[in-house]
Amino acid sequence: MSYKIDFNCDMGESFGMYKMGFDEEVIKYISSANIACGFHAGDPMWMRRTVVLAESHGVAVGAHPSYPDLNGFGRRNLSADPEEVRNDVVYQASALSGFTDSKTIQHVKPHGAMYNQAVADKELGEAICSAVMEVQDDAILLALSGSQWVETAKGLGMRVGREIFADRAVNDDGTLVSRRLPGSVIHDTEEVVDRSLRMVTEGKVISVNGNLVEVEADSICLHGDTPGAVDMAKSLRSAFEREGIEIMPLAKLV
Amino acid sequence: MSYKIDFNCDMGESFGMYKMGFDEEVIKYISSANIACGFHAGDPMWMRRTVVLAESHGVAVGAHPSYPDLNGFGRRNLSADPEEVRNDVVYQASALSGFTDSKTIQHVKPHGAMYNQAVADKELGEAICSAVMEVQDDAILLALSGSQWVETAKGLGMRVGREIFADRAVNDDGTLVSRRLPGSVIHDTEEVVDRSLRMVTEGKVISVNGNLVEVEADSICLHGDTPGAVDMAKSLRSAFEREGIEIMPLAKLV
Amino acid sequence: MSYKIDFNCDMGESFGMYKMGFDEEVIKYISSANIACGFHAGDPMWMRRTVVLAESHGVAVGAHPSYPDLNGFGRRNLSADPEEVRNDVVYQASALSGFTDSKTIQHVKPHGAMYNQAVADKELGEAICSAVMEVQDDAILLALSGSQWVETAKGLGMRVGREIFADRAVNDDGTLVSRRLPGSVIHDTEEVVDRSLRMVTEGKVISVNGNLVEVEADSICLHGDTPGAVDMAKSLRSAFEREGIEIMPLAKLV
Amino acid sequence: MSYKIDFNCDMGESFGMYKMGFDEEVIKYISSANIACGFHAGDPMWMRRTVVLAESHGVAVGAHPSYPDLNGFGRRNLSADPEEVRNDVVYQASALSGFTDSKTIQHVKPHGAMYNQAVADKELGEAICSAVMEVQDDAILLALSGSQWVETAKGLGMRVGREIFADRAVNDDGTLVSRRLPGSVIHDTEEVVDRSLRMVTEGKVISVNGNLVEVEADSICLHGDTPGAVDMAKSLRSAFEREGIEIMPLAKLV
Repeated sequence: MSYKIDFNCDMGESFGMYKMGFDEEVIKYISSANIACGFHAGDPMWMRRTVVLAESHGVAVGAHPSYPDLNGFGRRNLSADPEEVRNDVVYQASALSGFTDSKTIQHVKPHGAMYNQAVADKELGEAICSAVMEVQDDAILLALSGSQWVETAKGLGMRVGREIFADRAVNDDGTLVSRRLPGSVIHDTEEVVDRSLRMVTEGKVISVNGNLVEVEADSICLHGDTPGAVDMAKSLRSAFEREGIEIMPLAKLV
Repeated sequence: MSYKIDFNCDMGESFGMYKMGFDEEVIKYISSANIACGFHAGDPMWMRRTVVLAESHGVAVGAHPSYPDLNGFGRRNLSADPEEVRNDVVYQASALSGFTDSKTIQHVKPHGAMYNQAVADKELGEAICSAVMEVQDDAILLALSGSQWVETAKGLGMRVGREIFADRAVNDDGTLVSRRLPGSVIHDTEEVVDRSLRMVTEGKVISVNGNLVEVEADSICLHGDTPGAVDMAKSLRSAFEREGIEIMPLAKLV
Repeated sequence: MSYKIDFNCDMGESFGMYKMGFDEEVIKYISSANIACGFHAGDPMWMRRTVVLAESHGVAVGAHPSYPDLNGFGRRNLSADPEEVRNDVVYQASALSGFTDSKTIQHVKPHGAMYNQAVADKELGEAICSAVMEVQDDAILLALSGSQWVETAKGLGMRVGREIFADRAVNDDGTLVSRRLPGSVIHDTEEVVDRSLRMVTEGKVISVNGNLVEVEADSICLHGDTPGAVDMAKSLRSAFEREGIEIMPLAKLV
Repeated sequence: MSYKIDFNCDMGESFGMYKMGFDEEVIKYISSANIACGFHAGDPMWMRRTVVLAESHGVAVGAHPSYPDLNGFGRRNLSADPEEVRNDVVYQASALSGFTDSKTIQHVKPHGAMYNQAVADKELGEAICSAVMEVQDDAILLALSGSQWVETAKGLGMRVGREIFADRAVNDDGTLVSRRLPGSVIHDTEEVVDRSLRMVTEGKVISVNGNLVEVEADSICLHGDTPGAVDMAKSLRSAFEREGIEIMPLAKLV
């Protein structure tokens, strides 16, 4: 049996003089880049550099829009109106498109708190879907596998990629364990690789409570700003290739 | 003899709860709108509203990018690198495009200090030209009539609209009198109308020093946030129509 | 019987070129000003002007700190850590102190969402109390009358002013009706005056559900940015004086 | 003969998730810290941490205010009005004071472009002096040795510290070589130490053109964010101690 998966990573999260992440290294191993658009990280200079970096490596470009919260790195919940969020996403994703060769993007993956709140809030999830379709009718929403948000997107007839996380612990319902809790991020490379292989090939993962959870994935995410991210990305890619799992951009999968 | 002119106005300069200008009224009289993109004014909500307003009135949409200076309303000179400005313009103009029906804009007109510095600084002017062409190869740069910036744009083979100002005093070389000087903005409607008609039909205007200055114009700008702006816009449109001057979007002229 | 009350109003909520409120008029009728500190509105120029305005009218100066949300005018809930909020309040209130003659402030009244979340969240309320005491040990917290937040402040041994709202509808528990609901803001001057007089002299108000709610107040707040705010402030002051209610800064009352 | 000098370093230039500098190490070697105040770097959380760090090491706390330019790290010239700059400095320095134990600061040293423009522009220099005195009448301005700005401050009767730079090349007139030029920053530790010793003990330095320039110094600055900054700070401190140069906070010297 053959497996195919997109391998995505957040990129372009530097800002002005502030450097974050190991984009030049991680880019070698992934197939899709979620590029920050200036609201939680990134700026026009870094967006340009990161788009050029992705394109030169044949990595598909996606927008990684956020709530306007540079100081909080977009990780703080904000009670924005869905209409505000819709417009914030159109703004950011369109801005990013302008830096690409084709003036198009492959996908949109909201960042941090916006992503998490959209998983839980149907109206917010719809607003984001609406924004993505408005920016480009064939742009793909990258959203948490198993969430109602994925169903919302499908119901709207849009392209959607189901995402799992290589280095994040999951609850019994498949949602991510909050970053505020211990053990939410997995730092052991071997464990990350093992979990990832099993999620991709068997569609199963062990939850933080020790239960077996079923998952379906079009794309697997690794965080690029953690210590050891480069090795982890490299190990994950090697393992995928060793196991015959083809890595390809999301647009070829959904 | 027949005359044609584009009539442009800055729009969408409200921000959050802060209202500025009389867009709903002024929009009735103009043919092109320069819409703020969030760096000196405007935000995604106001960009949406203003684009919808312009499209519903058949007014052509243009981007009005600025230095990142919300507190100074983009009127303070900034020693940004040309490359920074290029990327800031790509970001803002692309973001605005996302709110339009066609995902295209008619033109880009930099705002305030960026506009004024580009008139004086060849390298900066080139960087902006490069940004406009990158966003959309047929997008028009709207730049000060008579400036080297217009020549730069022509030299690059791009579309460029030569702009004059209905309500601003000019120096002997055709540049605008600085806002810091008294008399820089003309508040008398009759004077604004008379000057405008003469500029459009005769290609002449009297400078702040009393000298006759020759001007060529594809577009005439009126500021929409001054007291009396609505009456002035209405009077100007009436005068143009009375004198047989056709008002039409820039894209039909250059 | 004699009554005393502080009359407070939000002030200095203009920003750069954007003007908000009728500070020059409203200042004549109030005894305490809550001055925006740049996070939801205001900037160093407006802080200077507003402090000078208040001092020249003998109106006591207070800080009106907010979540960092200029675009949302500080009205959107933010899941900031209490420690972040504590530091944000120290920053803003200290910044404001620098513009006063005495380098001191009378009070701190958090703005919008920060105020509302502090009413409901004990840990957040404590963090704000801690910040106020750190800025100046005799600074007064101005907080919603009847709330646990007032009790928290008292428990910490700090000065606290119990606040009621002249123009806001209340729920049965004395909390404010959300601005998202119809009828949350009362626009009829006569009704505002009648409610205010009754709250101050009888300690009672009719809730949005028609029930009688008991209230105790050291300060009454009127919003200065609504249409008719000037007339309302004037009417309220006249009514207080007519009824023998003395208006004086909070520092003389608590 | 005995020598005394203050040793200052920029600190607290991290922002949110973004870490900059080696404050925890460098703090061990210096006597005065210039702490960022949120306009070019820093935020209330980092201001708190950095003030606590400085106080725990007996290092004097100073404010490091900037133009509002987070993206440009305060290094871009801005044509702000002197009155705007005055208020921006009052705001930032007062905000920082609120985090200190004593609610006072030792000094104010403007950052980047604001510092450089104040060296060249008398009116701007005066506005900053006025701000520093307003914040605290005994606060010290830390300004470029040999500049007219130092004279301006003296003429106003305020305390002023004359600053030299350990790791920056100087022009024949004692001003700093622009960061845009090669060789503006000296990276060789031995050279930095030798220059510094000579400046402090002999009052002389070799300019970028090879000429001997006379300098007088109350404080010497080292940049804390360059590679090797920690070793350089350590080496400089050792050399000073070896040569019998006493290192002490500015307030003991001027």
